[in-house]
Amino acid sequence: MSNKSAAPVLGRRQWLSSSAGTLAVLGLGTSAPVLRAQTPPASTAKTLPAYAAWKDSNAMLIHSSATIETKRQAFGAGLITPAEQLYVRNNLGAPAASILDDRDAWEVSIEGVKNPRRISLRELKTLGVETTPMVLQCSGNGRGFFPNKPSGTPWLVGAAGCVVWTGVPVRVVVEALGGVLRGHEFMTGTGGEVLPEGLDPKSIVVERSVPAKAMGDALLAWEMNGVPIPLAHGGPLRLVVPGYQGVNQIKYVKRLAFTEQESDAKIMAHGYRISPPGSKADPSQPSVLEMNVKSWINSPLPERAGAAGQVQIQGVAFSGLHAIKRVEVSVDGGKSWKEARLVGPDLGKYAWRQFVLAAKLQAGTHTLASRATDMAGNVQPEQRLENVGGYNNNSWADHAVTVTLA
Amino acid sequence: MSNKSAAPVLGRRQWLSSSAGTLAVLGLGTSAPVLRAQTPPASTAKTLPAYAAWKDSNAMLIHSSATIETKRQAFGAGLITPAEQLYVRNNLGAPAASILDDRDAWEVSIEGVKNPRRISLRELKTLGVETTPMVLQCSGNGRGFFPNKPSGTPWLVGAAGCVVWTGVPVRVVVEALGGVLRGHEFMTGTGGEVLPEGLDPKSIVVERSVPAKAMGDALLAWEMNGVPIPLAHGGPLRLVVPGYQGVNQIKYVKRLAFTEQESDAKIMAHGYRISPPGSKADPSQPSVLEMNVKSWINSPLPERAGAAGQVQIQGVAFSGLHAIKRVEVSVDGGKSWKEARLVGPDLGKYAWRQFVLAAKLQAGTHTLASRATDMAGNVQPEQRLENVGGYNNNSWADHAVTVTLA
Repeated sequence: MSNKSAAPVLGRRQWLSSSAGTLAVLGLGTSAPVLRAQTPPASTAKTLPAYAAWKDSNAMLIHSSATIETKRQAFGAGLITPAEQLYVRNNLGAPAASILDDRDAWEVSIEGVKNPRRISLRELKTLGVETTPMVLQCSGNGRGFFPNKPSGTPWLVGAAGCVVWTGVPVRVVVEALGGVLRGHEFMTGTGGEVLPEGLDPKSIVVERSVPAKAMGDALLAWEMNGVPIPLAHGGPLRLVVPGYQGVNQIKYVKRLAFTEQESDAKIMAHGYRISPPGSKADPSQPSVLEMNVKSWINSPLPERAGAAGQVQIQGVAFSGLHAIKRVEVSVDGGKSWKEARLVGPDLGKYAWRQFVLAAKLQAGTHTLASRATDMAGNVQPEQRLENVGGYNNNSWADHAVTVTLA
Repeated sequence: MSNKSAAPVLGRRQWLSSSAGTLAVLGLGTSAPVLRAQTPPASTAKTLPAYAAWKDSNAMLIHSSATIETKRQAFGAGLITPAEQLYVRNNLGAPAASILDDRDAWEVSIEGVKNPRRISLRELKTLGVETTPMVLQCSGNGRGFFPNKPSGTPWLVGAAGCVVWTGVPVRVVVEALGGVLRGHEFMTGTGGEVLPEGLDPKSIVVERSVPAKAMGDALLAWEMNGVPIPLAHGGPLRLVVPGYQGVNQIKYVKRLAFTEQESDAKIMAHGYRISPPGSKADPSQPSVLEMNVKSWINSPLPERAGAAGQVQIQGVAFSGLHAIKRVEVSVDGGKSWKEARLVGPDLGKYAWRQFVLAAKLQAGTHTLASRATDMAGNVQPEQRLENVGGYNNNSWADHAVTVTLA
């Protein structure tokens, strides 16, 4: 999908544009959450919005009040991304902060199980506890590298982070409620954002379906990085589906339903589809679900290339449902590769691994690239898979960096 | 050492009192760093000092401007303690924040090796990279549970956290400089705090020696939790010695020397010694070095005990040089024990483990305790080892909590 296309309901951003257009017709003010998604990127919105004002503004690229990414040079080698540096991508505006006043009173409706009912966070906390480090990534991460400039936020590498979630395993909740009904093969989460009245809720609600098998490692989470989940990241309760792209990690989750069909909400049926170039988004096209194998280099970068001589080339690597097996690094733009060393403890298959390769580099210009392979044998490709929405970019060529050493 | 004792040079706090007294004689103002250590605890100092103003004040107990601990109820289950909740304990005031203006220009003198020299952080970063999660704990953590109220900050459980350090292994630096000189059996780190003139530097400098073998896993670290180390935590460069008590983790490290003898600085020779009750601190007594096996419960607590029924009893467990093997939990004050489940990924032997035990508890009052065992077979004892300074408290009885369920 190009910016020039006027065809309706094609991709993620046009989906929002369409909704926002409807809102404008209804005379809703500019503070209406969906309008935020139309805010032009970076150049016109440079300050952090109130709900994310606690972020480290020096570490962030602010595209809009609902789309804020981590600067590539802000990524350290610490395994876990500090909350104040973690990207934000809200499909709708966050609910009022008052929903955090009594976190334990938050309720989620569990449906499609033998004994469906509403259950409070207070009760969820008595059922079980698990802690899972996980890469959280917007499916549009890397869209900024698409040369044809797909509509949507031109994320580079920083719409991603590795964070630690704590909550109750979904399977424990399901067992407590008698198990999933037969034939209900999707797990559908619905966000608790307040929807403007007068619109078809299906056109705007954040509701996503994943295969029910994903419940194996999914959590209903109340902590991120050891503290109650901030509003900007979905507190008081978020559905966390390890290995899946960010849009499936439902914030302010108010309903968790096992369903026979995928949701027919617009964000599921027409949004976040891998649409071949020139096509319109369609429910028959692949949805944005599991993440793919990916890596990138965070040091050195053009902004801090340093001196010629020995250089420690560092970055991160992850995949979707499989752990990282190895990472190779090239210092000649991909002509030759050397295996990098994985650094620090392994936080499990859903976390990213840090990698490092020590290399002796002469003064001059070098193109550095990294290429990850996961345990299932998936190799990070040289080229992106072209698609209208600019999703799932894991091209190693796109993520290469060119540095000049003094 | 009791508060009533007037004997000089006995323990950690009297050491500071003595130095501060000398400063007072010299007419140095109250902003002199060492005077901070005399600030009375909690009740009179409730705001965060400037160098730690970025901490989450709701999560902290502020004893003084140099002693700030994490509230027990602020510990989540996230494995890694966020920087804004991490305790602060400075033996001397922090250097001027301007030392962070050009972090890479910071230099440390490496001595007691074949080719001793000063080396910049810029160069250290080219030599190697490792990332190590590690419990950081003040040796006085738990002093507040000593009934005889030893002099010093009455820390409860919160002078500890688990953080991730990134830096170059000390052994890599040592190899690059030709190796340690024969017979130099101690690794001595010296802090870069500015010392007031007119005093014997040895009476006030932060300089500690550990066995040289500790260099095996030690780092010269520039990142904590994925970001450059904040001033309050020793940036731009900190000596990190995994498994050892906090006083050995030298902030603003300016000298790393392999020495034939332990440092004769007062903080080493007379401070941080395990002095039997009634004795005076003495270099012949054991120093505060490796941490011991320890655990405590963070949920439920009296402040948030919740309702009767199923309860998820959670806490943290760690040791010094050995990984945690198991944690047992008692709901009857230690009469009987059940093995808890270790939760989340294992971040390595220097990190803490989260544990959880699901228990059905009736309405009423219960005393909950945890008891950790490490891989070397060390078992957390019921009773603390009495000592003048109130160090190394790992008593499970002291760390038990009594909760009343409705």
